[in-house]
Amino acid sequence: MSERRVGLWLIGAYGGVGTTTAVGLAALARGLFPPTGLVTTLPQFASVPFDPPAAFTVGGHDVRAGSFAASAEEFRSRSGVFSESLLSAVADDLSAWSKNVQPGVVFKPDDASARLVDRSDVRRAATPRAAVDAIASDLNRFREANRFDQVVVVNCASTEPPGDTSPALQSAAAFDAALNRPDASFPVSALYAVAAIGNGFPYVNLTPSLGASFPAAEELARSRGVPHLGQDAKTGETLLKSVLAPLFARRNLKVLSWVGHNILGNRDGRVLADPHNKASKVKSKDALLAELLGYKPQSLVSIEYVESLDDWKTAWDHVHFEGFLGTKMTLQFTWQGCDSLLAAPLVIDLARLALLSQRRGLSGTVPAAACFFKSPLGCKEHDFGKQFAALEQFLTDR
Amino acid sequence: MSERRVGLWLIGAYGGVGTTTAVGLAALARGLFPPTGLVTTLPQFASVPFDPPAAFTVGGHDVRAGSFAASAEEFRSRSGVFSESLLSAVADDLSAWSKNVQPGVVFKPDDASARLVDRSDVRRAATPRAAVDAIASDLNRFREANRFDQVVVVNCASTEPPGDTSPALQSAAAFDAALNRPDASFPVSALYAVAAIGNGFPYVNLTPSLGASFPAAEELARSRGVPHLGQDAKTGETLLKSVLAPLFARRNLKVLSWVGHNILGNRDGRVLADPHNKASKVKSKDALLAELLGYKPQSLVSIEYVESLDDWKTAWDHVHFEGFLGTKMTLQFTWQGCDSLLAAPLVIDLARLALLSQRRGLSGTVPAAACFFKSPLGCKEHDFGKQFAALEQFLTDR
Amino acid sequence: MSERRVGLWLIGAYGGVGTTTAVGLAALARGLFPPTGLVTTLPQFASVPFDPPAAFTVGGHDVRAGSFAASAEEFRSRSGVFSESLLSAVADDLSAWSKNVQPGVVFKPDDASARLVDRSDVRRAATPRAAVDAIASDLNRFREANRFDQVVVVNCASTEPPGDTSPALQSAAAFDAALNRPDASFPVSALYAVAAIGNGFPYVNLTPSLGASFPAAEELARSRGVPHLGQDAKTGETLLKSVLAPLFARRNLKVLSWVGHNILGNRDGRVLADPHNKASKVKSKDALLAELLGYKPQSLVSIEYVESLDDWKTAWDHVHFEGFLGTKMTLQFTWQGCDSLLAAPLVIDLARLALLSQRRGLSGTVPAAACFFKSPLGCKEHDFGKQFAALEQFLTDR
Amino acid sequence: MSERRVGLWLIGAYGGVGTTTAVGLAALARGLFPPTGLVTTLPQFASVPFDPPAAFTVGGHDVRAGSFAASAEEFRSRSGVFSESLLSAVADDLSAWSKNVQPGVVFKPDDASARLVDRSDVRRAATPRAAVDAIASDLNRFREANRFDQVVVVNCASTEPPGDTSPALQSAAAFDAALNRPDASFPVSALYAVAAIGNGFPYVNLTPSLGASFPAAEELARSRGVPHLGQDAKTGETLLKSVLAPLFARRNLKVLSWVGHNILGNRDGRVLADPHNKASKVKSKDALLAELLGYKPQSLVSIEYVESLDDWKTAWDHVHFEGFLGTKMTLQFTWQGCDSLLAAPLVIDLARLALLSQRRGLSGTVPAAACFFKSPLGCKEHDFGKQFAALEQFLTDR
Repeated sequence: MSERRVGLWLIGAYGGVGTTTAVGLAALARGLFPPTGLVTTLPQFASVPFDPPAAFTVGGHDVRAGSFAASAEEFRSRSGVFSESLLSAVADDLSAWSKNVQPGVVFKPDDASARLVDRSDVRRAATPRAAVDAIASDLNRFREANRFDQVVVVNCASTEPPGDTSPALQSAAAFDAALNRPDASFPVSALYAVAAIGNGFPYVNLTPSLGASFPAAEELARSRGVPHLGQDAKTGETLLKSVLAPLFARRNLKVLSWVGHNILGNRDGRVLADPHNKASKVKSKDALLAELLGYKPQSLVSIEYVESLDDWKTAWDHVHFEGFLGTKMTLQFTWQGCDSLLAAPLVIDLARLALLSQRRGLSGTVPAAACFFKSPLGCKEHDFGKQFAALEQFLTDR
Repeated sequence: MSERRVGLWLIGAYGGVGTTTAVGLAALARGLFPPTGLVTTLPQFASVPFDPPAAFTVGGHDVRAGSFAASAEEFRSRSGVFSESLLSAVADDLSAWSKNVQPGVVFKPDDASARLVDRSDVRRAATPRAAVDAIASDLNRFREANRFDQVVVVNCASTEPPGDTSPALQSAAAFDAALNRPDASFPVSALYAVAAIGNGFPYVNLTPSLGASFPAAEELARSRGVPHLGQDAKTGETLLKSVLAPLFARRNLKVLSWVGHNILGNRDGRVLADPHNKASKVKSKDALLAELLGYKPQSLVSIEYVESLDDWKTAWDHVHFEGFLGTKMTLQFTWQGCDSLLAAPLVIDLARLALLSQRRGLSGTVPAAACFFKSPLGCKEHDFGKQFAALEQFLTDR
Repeated sequence: MSERRVGLWLIGAYGGVGTTTAVGLAALARGLFPPTGLVTTLPQFASVPFDPPAAFTVGGHDVRAGSFAASAEEFRSRSGVFSESLLSAVADDLSAWSKNVQPGVVFKPDDASARLVDRSDVRRAATPRAAVDAIASDLNRFREANRFDQVVVVNCASTEPPGDTSPALQSAAAFDAALNRPDASFPVSALYAVAAIGNGFPYVNLTPSLGASFPAAEELARSRGVPHLGQDAKTGETLLKSVLAPLFARRNLKVLSWVGHNILGNRDGRVLADPHNKASKVKSKDALLAELLGYKPQSLVSIEYVESLDDWKTAWDHVHFEGFLGTKMTLQFTWQGCDSLLAAPLVIDLARLALLSQRRGLSGTVPAAACFFKSPLGCKEHDFGKQFAALEQFLTDR
Repeated sequence: MSERRVGLWLIGAYGGVGTTTAVGLAALARGLFPPTGLVTTLPQFASVPFDPPAAFTVGGHDVRAGSFAASAEEFRSRSGVFSESLLSAVADDLSAWSKNVQPGVVFKPDDASARLVDRSDVRRAATPRAAVDAIASDLNRFREANRFDQVVVVNCASTEPPGDTSPALQSAAAFDAALNRPDASFPVSALYAVAAIGNGFPYVNLTPSLGASFPAAEELARSRGVPHLGQDAKTGETLLKSVLAPLFARRNLKVLSWVGHNILGNRDGRVLADPHNKASKVKSKDALLAELLGYKPQSLVSIEYVESLDDWKTAWDHVHFEGFLGTKMTLQFTWQGCDSLLAAPLVIDLARLALLSQRRGLSGTVPAAACFFKSPLGCKEHDFGKQFAALEQFLTDR
């Protein structure tokens, strides 16, 4: 197993999550830190044949110029995470991996990602198919140049606005036909997903963007025998909701209102400050309440860009509930987490899980991964405890 | 079923929890409020043959003089719960039930409860056996006078200091022998428990006091075919710990420290202000962390008496944890709950569950009740999700 | 002094603030409660000849039908403030005073208040002058019928959208001319203010609506010798800002961002849920930061309607600041106040202060009242400590 | 002015505050950071002739071995403040200044500081006078070796237990006589203070230890013409109390209870974990409430050592108050500040202020410095706004 070599392809490589994933993999491979934050290293999974950190080589796409080292240094100085000596220790890996990062592919000029473009060599595709082909070609070159045993593709780019529900998304045949139309309205995240799956590479969608969460992509994944995991990693407020809402339900305490305010200042926050993009996220953060409670209390979710916080996402939740004899009570919580540091270990977990799923012969959605996501694909369960039990069973019942 | 009649005997009847239980049962029987806060009325338990509120008649012991109506009025004016019209609507029941409340029995002069005594007719027993006999005789009279089908005894008196581990607690025979010794050091809660169980009445311990949580009581319960449930209802901070600690464990986030400060101003708070009594509670609130996390982080639990809060127990918890690459993050929560209103529905739940358990032929501890308690008897599981699943299985797998 | 009798005319009489003011005055006059929350009863003002509560008779306008008793009862049952026995004790006063409440006057159909109208006898004026005349006539009748020594008019109606800056507002002559134009765009709050001032009655504006805060009104007030006080009472979050921002400034701690989220569920909250109306309030809550700090940090203020909270306005503020050597730190606060109970004593304070100011011969704005307001008229000082010192000097330096 | 050179002598030099002061002075002198957090650099004080950072040379006493560089590096790695490149940039200064740090002097074996001793060359004095002489001799050597224009001595050592009220503290003569007694019970902080003042060096007490806050020291200071400033810098929770309590008082809102829980994990926290030492601090943090409110509400202050927090002192305060008509409301705040980074700029401020006061000819306590302290010497005012106004007047009214 130790001679296995795998590729991890990050869409949005130089963002906070992508950069932290690269720094983290290099640090773990060198034994600089214990694997805190990685679910796949829990004792109960000790005998699961996951790929070790040292087996990974990182590459990716980004629409912005730069390097892992530059992003990491910017991140260090702004958010106060990473020490200068950590970045020195992993400098060689970051440098080598930056050479694997290709200019991103843009299809529609109004993509969220298109607005972030700051490198001249970004490829602007005339048709969706041209975009898919360019992406697929980059992925293949990464695999062949490195002779990887497997490659996994993870979308950690900025959030796109909610996707349309074009009929062309409903079947593989309709989708394939529409790929030739310059006026097709597919979000670019779907094109990346299809390129990965079409190549036979497992795909993970860490964001609320469309990715592979549409029937045509599922059909393609099943026909190619490729697993894909998504959607929208739960790292903070929503994660807490997924354990607290079941508590209220089981104690028959009636939630009257649940208000959640999120403030953050990283690039993700800046993209979400656009109400159009924010809509995807808010929907994903809010939907689980009704599922978990069995009724829909009044709820509010806001996400706001507060520059000074950088990556330190702070959430204040106010839960107003009614107990016995109509008595109103309150639970408030404040979550202060560094968003990229919470998400990056999940990228590693999900990459390992996706690679393992492919080796196990799974294709299409992987419901056992539900505990990682706000909007789990192929699974209606939102209770974190039950989701986690399903993961444990999936990984250990062999 | 509707003609069944059951007795609910409350030790500490005129305290906040006992009084709210009486008000609540009367209000529910009249349909004045929906059964919010009662676990046993959840949809999934709809077909379980629990006794309806109207089947219950309340009695109890108290070392303080008074009446349910007076306690409820004091509680209303201090804590702002209950409306004056609610208390009018249930006045007849409260009045009738107050007649069933007998003066408490005190054994040792330094009992926590002994210090609360303010009625001249409290019985001071010369030996533990005299106390047990006096209690048992009150219980029997309650049953016979009302021709109940069943009687359940619930300890909702103030918390005692941690019990000793006298050898006499280790077996029914040794315990029985020691009952005759005037110098025996049994806490009075154990004498009430033994009186109930000896009478064949199921017993519930809502507090961290010793109650029936010792080998001799368990032996007695099994030999008499009596179920007993305990110990120390989880209603707020500890309840939250029992869902949040598993979250940190499953995400492999390392809890560095967990600090919990509780402030409250009811009689329970005044008793807990005595460091001797507080020790039981703090231990019960703190123990589960190491169980749930698999290691022991630094932890602090304080409980302090703040008179102005009355029954509004406020807890602030600060959880400091380490994520990926050594990054330290924080979760804080504030819980503002009305303690008696959170505990009283559990009294009703546990009374119904204890009565059902007896009808089902159970004896000794009832591990399926673990989700209600901080220190569940007969069960090592502290994860609320798993505890609740066990309750669901117990109640519905027939 | 004791035989003096004064009238208090409340615009928006049946709202939470108006109703609480009426209940409070009646309760204070009966000695049912100490005057907690009233600034004018502080020891340092003991010798200031303010009118005692018993001197007041209440009247007012409202566009909704009802009575003080009905509003108070609704408020009691929803927000859990007031006891049933308090409302019984003041029932006679409430009943008598409700007879003094006249149907409101509406001018433009899109007024915020026009949308709340639910009584058929509301007067719809064809011109601004017709509205002013109708209001003035009601005020005069109130005074004459009761032979008051003085009458004070307080605007505690719902917030209007931000007013325009019509040239007609700039001088008394232009304003008077425009009063005849059916298409004039004056907000109704200005018409009430002008009616009061034109009658020679001091006027207080508790809200961010225009009221008397425009040059023509000031000119009129000075010419009639009438004082007026405003604008937008500070009762919670903004009050805290006005003591905390000076702290950061004086310690040379650099505020990087100040985020404030307000949630509330009363009628005021419902009106503010309209973004158009909310704009006035947010502006008023946000402006003082730059004044107090000397620079403008990033700031956010949200106000959101959360029905279950009723009158319990909850504010969460997150202040991110930089200390020595670039170190970022955080102050968070949560304010849980009952909005009407915080505002009503200020109505009484301001009414007493306005009546006293008139007796002292003041006219126009009263800068000494700045400590009561978010946007003090005639005063640029926002530091609460300095504002209060000015009030002390005004009241005691005689 | 630019050629002036002054010495800053830090008692407890290698503690968090002392170390940060040294790093900060070196960084400011190099222009690496703006002077955020320094009160003396506010615009209104621009023309006050304070000594610039570049004029300062640092020395001090410590009972622990080490160096500024080692302390700073330990602080960096534990608390995450300071970057590695900042410490490189100031390394030369830190190295030079460490040479000026002398082994501390210990008098009684049960001193708080005596328990921290970890260097073999600490001087253990047989009599108080021997201690004073040893300290004075170190101070003089520092001044002479560097030909300073002035030297200021600042106590930033760990907190001592509350001092006794020995009659020998009451007059200079009695104190002088007692200095020869080996069994005298003076805390060592008083000996340092007397040594400094006896030498003619202004003295600042940043801690709640006795320092110069006793009549004999004041008498000595006046006779030598030396100003001294104290006591116990207010940097967080108490600072907030000193602006919030006046707010409640001025609005006539009745504080029912004020609970403050402080958790921190630095060396100061470890010393305070000793209940004996904590007593001084709690008293100092609690006393001002009654002064500011005019009555004494129930209050609790706890300080607890939570290792993982290092220097990040977190305070949760819960203020329960009563408003109009008996309505109970709540303000909670959470303060998350880095203690040494909050205190160090005040050391620089107070050193500059003490030096200026001496140049202005002041002797004894300096009431104008009250805004810096929890227990201001020579001043009864606790309202931060009024204290600050006094400082402004002192500095600018010339």
